[in-house]
Amino acid sequence: MSGILYGVGVGPGDAELMTLKALRCIKECDVLILPSAPKEDCHAYGIVKEVYPEVEKKQILCLHFPMTKDKEKLEHAHNEIFCRVKKLIEEGKKVAFLTIGDPCVYSTYHYIHRRMEAAGKEVRIISGVPSFCAAAAALGISLGDMQEKIHVIPASYEIENTMELRGTRIYMKSGKKLAQLKELLREQAKTRKLEVYAVENCGMINEKRAYGIEQLDAEAGYLTLVIVKDGE
Amino acid sequence: MSGILYGVGVGPGDAELMTLKALRCIKECDVLILPSAPKEDCHAYGIVKEVYPEVEKKQILCLHFPMTKDKEKLEHAHNEIFCRVKKLIEEGKKVAFLTIGDPCVYSTYHYIHRRMEAAGKEVRIISGVPSFCAAAAALGISLGDMQEKIHVIPASYEIENTMELRGTRIYMKSGKKLAQLKELLREQAKTRKLEVYAVENCGMINEKRAYGIEQLDAEAGYLTLVIVKDGE
Repeated sequence: MSGILYGVGVGPGDAELMTLKALRCIKECDVLILPSAPKEDCHAYGIVKEVYPEVEKKQILCLHFPMTKDKEKLEHAHNEIFCRVKKLIEEGKKVAFLTIGDPCVYSTYHYIHRRMEAAGKEVRIISGVPSFCAAAAALGISLGDMQEKIHVIPASYEIENTMELRGTRIYMKSGKKLAQLKELLREQAKTRKLEVYAVENCGMINEKRAYGIEQLDAEAGYLTLVIVKDGE
Repeated sequence: MSGILYGVGVGPGDAELMTLKALRCIKECDVLILPSAPKEDCHAYGIVKEVYPEVEKKQILCLHFPMTKDKEKLEHAHNEIFCRVKKLIEEGKKVAFLTIGDPCVYSTYHYIHRRMEAAGKEVRIISGVPSFCAAAAALGISLGDMQEKIHVIPASYEIENTMELRGTRIYMKSGKKLAQLKELLREQAKTRKLEVYAVENCGMINEKRAYGIEQLDAEAGYLTLVIVKDGE
């Protein structure tokens, strides 16, 4: 009997924003995969432990995903991780791979999912609340109403080409680009009315919120999310 | 003592995709508000009932939101609903306003939230899994990797101006526009490689999936979500 791989979104940080399904899947699985090592460094694991402390007794496999944009290195690392996970599936194990937020939104989980599916193994994704929904909730704002479009932008890549987008722009993981983004928005605000918000470490104890371009802190951390709405 | 208004996202349809927090809030609230009447017609209520049948014993207020783009009519309806909800808050009640998906993504909840906040009342948003995350999970695809942008487009408005967007396009509630969207994508596919997917009634018993432009069913219902990715 062959096993199954679950990609499990544990939500944006607040442990209570885990879904009932994610919690059940984690309780029922044979092996838990954490996308970082050691487990104490894994944010997703910390979230689960808050609502389900018995998770400590589970069989846990910590896998290191390199933080690089080098395609060859990534390919090599993903292949290696895939092989280790596939071995478990072939042993008939139910394997739950944890991800922060939602597994379909910029998650390393998909690199393993694709390979597993291509290898003919059973795979299933359990959705989670993405970080930008939690950020909007913390700020008390809507991301989109009526005809407004919502654009999600991975801000560690090029951002100059996003200035002309109309509607709501969500800059994810904008930490290192904050100084540049602040400059671009200052320039844009001269000719277009903007509403600018930011949340750093949303849902965590050290959460910080900012309202307006001038409050954007160029020194803020990696997990900073910036929301820009067209002003009225 | 003044009450509080919670905007509660109950997720995309699968009752197990409700968050622990949404369920707790619904259990603890004094009054439940459903954005449609009668309650049997309310999809959000049906979702809650599946995991918490005792919800029937709660005090429930069904409020009708008109389905129109007429600003004056909407303004009038929202003001009236706001007054009814505010009365409950002023009586000290904990009020939970249910929404499908996430309360910050094209939800009628925000029309009441804004007014309540402006009136100085306590408001809080409980995030939910948006429908597009569940659709991507059902299809087994990623919405965005690495530098890919994700664009969420309310498809009941203009869609011609979305053809030049790069990355992943998510057309929400595209039912009535499906014939037009299919034509636009056919035209675009002549010069640009596209991956096209659709999910109708995601997470419900009558869920249908489509792969490729030609499988798009121009007769599909209102709750059809189309995902277009840049091909490789």
